[in-house]
Amino acid sequence: MAISILFGGKSYEHEISIVSAISLGKIMKIEHFIFLDCEHQFYLIPQEKMKSSTFSSGEYKQCKKLTIKGRDFYHSSFLGDKALGVRKLLSVIHGGDGEDGIISSMLEFYSIPFIAPRTKACVVSFDKHLTKLYAKDRGVEVLPFELFEIANPPKSLGKYPSIIKPLRLGSSIGVSVIESENDLAYALDEAFEYDECILVEPFISGVKEYNLAGYRNLEGDFVFSIVEEPKKSDFLNFENKYLDFSRTEQVCKAQISQELENALREAFVKLYKNCFEGAIIRCDFFVIEDRVYLNEINPIPGSMANYLFPDFSKAIEEVMMPSPRMINIDYRYIGKIQRAKGKA
Amino acid sequence: MAISILFGGKSYEHEISIVSAISLGKIMKIEHFIFLDCEHQFYLIPQEKMKSSTFSSGEYKQCKKLTIKGRDFYHSSFLGDKALGVRKLLSVIHGGDGEDGIISSMLEFYSIPFIAPRTKACVVSFDKHLTKLYAKDRGVEVLPFELFEIANPPKSLGKYPSIIKPLRLGSSIGVSVIESENDLAYALDEAFEYDECILVEPFISGVKEYNLAGYRNLEGDFVFSIVEEPKKSDFLNFENKYLDFSRTEQVCKAQISQELENALREAFVKLYKNCFEGAIIRCDFFVIEDRVYLNEINPIPGSMANYLFPDFSKAIEEVMMPSPRMINIDYRYIGKIQRAKGKA
Repeated sequence: MAISILFGGKSYEHEISIVSAISLGKIMKIEHFIFLDCEHQFYLIPQEKMKSSTFSSGEYKQCKKLTIKGRDFYHSSFLGDKALGVRKLLSVIHGGDGEDGIISSMLEFYSIPFIAPRTKACVVSFDKHLTKLYAKDRGVEVLPFELFEIANPPKSLGKYPSIIKPLRLGSSIGVSVIESENDLAYALDEAFEYDECILVEPFISGVKEYNLAGYRNLEGDFVFSIVEEPKKSDFLNFENKYLDFSRTEQVCKAQISQELENALREAFVKLYKNCFEGAIIRCDFFVIEDRVYLNEINPIPGSMANYLFPDFSKAIEEVMMPSPRMINIDYRYIGKIQRAKGKA
Repeated sequence: MAISILFGGKSYEHEISIVSAISLGKIMKIEHFIFLDCEHQFYLIPQEKMKSSTFSSGEYKQCKKLTIKGRDFYHSSFLGDKALGVRKLLSVIHGGDGEDGIISSMLEFYSIPFIAPRTKACVVSFDKHLTKLYAKDRGVEVLPFELFEIANPPKSLGKYPSIIKPLRLGSSIGVSVIESENDLAYALDEAFEYDECILVEPFISGVKEYNLAGYRNLEGDFVFSIVEEPKKSDFLNFENKYLDFSRTEQVCKAQISQELENALREAFVKLYKNCFEGAIIRCDFFVIEDRVYLNEINPIPGSMANYLFPDFSKAIEEVMMPSPRMINIDYRYIGKIQRAKGKA
C-alpha cells in the first residue's frame, strides 16, 4: 500500500522535517507529500517540487491548499471539496506540532490511519523529564539529572563537564556541553531561548553510544533495526545532525556482543510496549560499565532512521496500526434521569 | 467577555459532559453551546435546546453543523463559510477526546483561545499511572498501587478491601471496591470492559477525603476554591456521581484546620504549576494520619466544580490563558546546505 508523508510543522525542527521528507522520497514510493507550514496551512507538494528551495523560497504557497476533515485531506474544487485519498499517512513532523502530540491528536480525531506515536507516547517522549520518570518506572536506567527554570537558573553546576538541554526539543537544538563554569552563562542563554525549563546531566566523554530503532508488526511481534554506533565528533552539533538527517544509505552494524544487543532490545521493548504502538521509533542508549542507560527516545527520528533497516518499505508496510477504541453511547443514564424527573 | 462551551465527545463520559454543559448554562451566560457528537461532528445548539432529550433523541442532528478551522468554528452558508465568533471556549469534554488531550491539541492547533488543560497536562492526569509518577516526582504522596493488563489479570489480591480502577477513565466508571476474593472476577470484568489496563489500590474505609479546585489568574497568582468534604455513601457509584455532576448550588466549606487547608493548597500548587496553566482543575485528596495523599487530578471536573467557587463567572473571566510559543523559521540551515551544495 502506498504511503503519504506529512512534514513541516510550526517547530524549531521544521527544516529538519523537510529534509526527512525529501530523504524518504528518495528511497521509497510516496503517494502524497503533504506539507504543513508555520501558519498551520496544509499544502499538497508535487513530487518534482520536493526540494529544499520550494520551501525556503515560499514557492510552496502556489501549491494546492488542503484541509483536514473526516477520514482524509481535501482540496477545494468547483464541485466542492474533493478527498485526496490518503490511505496511510507517515508523519515526519519532528519537534513541536509533531512530537508534542498535536498532530497525532488531530489524525486520531479525523480517523486518518497514520504511522506516528499516539498522543500519550508523544508527550512521554517529548518532555525529557517525563521520559526519565517513564523509563525508570519501566525498569530502564537513565543518567541523573537536575531541572532548572528560567526564573531560577543555576549559578554554578556541581560537576564539569555537564550537558545542558532544553526540556522539550530534539535534534540537539539549544544543547551545549560545558567544560567549566566559564561556559555556563552562554549555554544557559542558548538553552533558555528554546524552553523556559532546562535539564542538566553529567557529560561523559567517550561514553559508548548505541542507537536501536524498531516497531511492532501486524502480528504484535517486535521488529528491530540493526544497532548503530553513531559517529560523533564528541558531540554532534545541530548542523552535523542536520546533515545526518538526510541519510539514506544503510549504515554498518555496530560490533557488539550478542549479549549487549539483547540487553538493548530488552530495554527497547520495555520502553515501547503498550505506549508506542503505531510508531517506528529510535531509542538512543549509553552503555557505561556494561549497563544500559536510556539517553533519549526519538518518537519520530530524523529520516525515520530508514538507514538502520535493511528494507524500510517493508517496515512501513507491516507496522501495527492501533485501532481507535469503539465507544457505544446509549444515553442510558440521561434516560434514567429523565424518567426520574418524570420527563420520559 | 462571554464564554462558549464545548461539550459531548466520543467518550464513556459523553453524557456527563452534557450534564456539565446544561448545569453551567444555568449559572452563567453562555454565548455558544458547541456539541461534539460521537461521529466527531460539531453542532451549534441553541440555548433553548439545551436539555438532555435534545441529545438522547438525536434531535441535535437538526441543529447547525460546525467545522473547526483557523481561529474559530464555522458554519456553511450560501455565501461560503461563516465564522461563529468564538472568543473564549471552555471545554467540558470529560474522558476520551477531552481529558486525553485530543481536543486540547486541536484547539491549540487552530489557535482558538480555550480554558482546559493543554495536551501534556491532559495526558499526565488522564492516565492514572502517569499521574502517580508525576505526583510523586513533584513531592505529593500517593497511595501504593499495582498495575495489571488484561492479558495477565490478577488471580487474587494480597489485601482486602481493595479498589479496582480502569487506567484511563474518570467519573468512577468501571471502578469497584472489592471486599473479598469472591468479588474479584466480576470487578475485573467490569474494569477491563473500559480499559485493557487496570490499577489496584488499597481501599481505606472511612478515609478523610477533601476536594480542592483552583487555577492561576491573569497575574499568575493561584486562586483556590473552598475545600469540600464530599458526601459519600462510602463510595460514589456512577449514577450518584452523575447526579453529582449537575450540581450548581454552593456547598459548605469543610470544617478543617488552617494548617490542613494550607497543606492541601501547597499540594495543589505542586501539581498545577508549569503544567495545568489555562485550566480550572479539581484535585481530590485523602488525608491519612495527618498526611496528604493525592487521589486524583480532575483536569476537567464535572460541571467544572462551579459549586466550590463563590463566583464561578469571575473564575472564567480571570483564568490565565497561556499563549502559544512563537516560532520564527528563517530557513537558515536549509540555506546553508543549499550553498554548500552550490545550489544557492
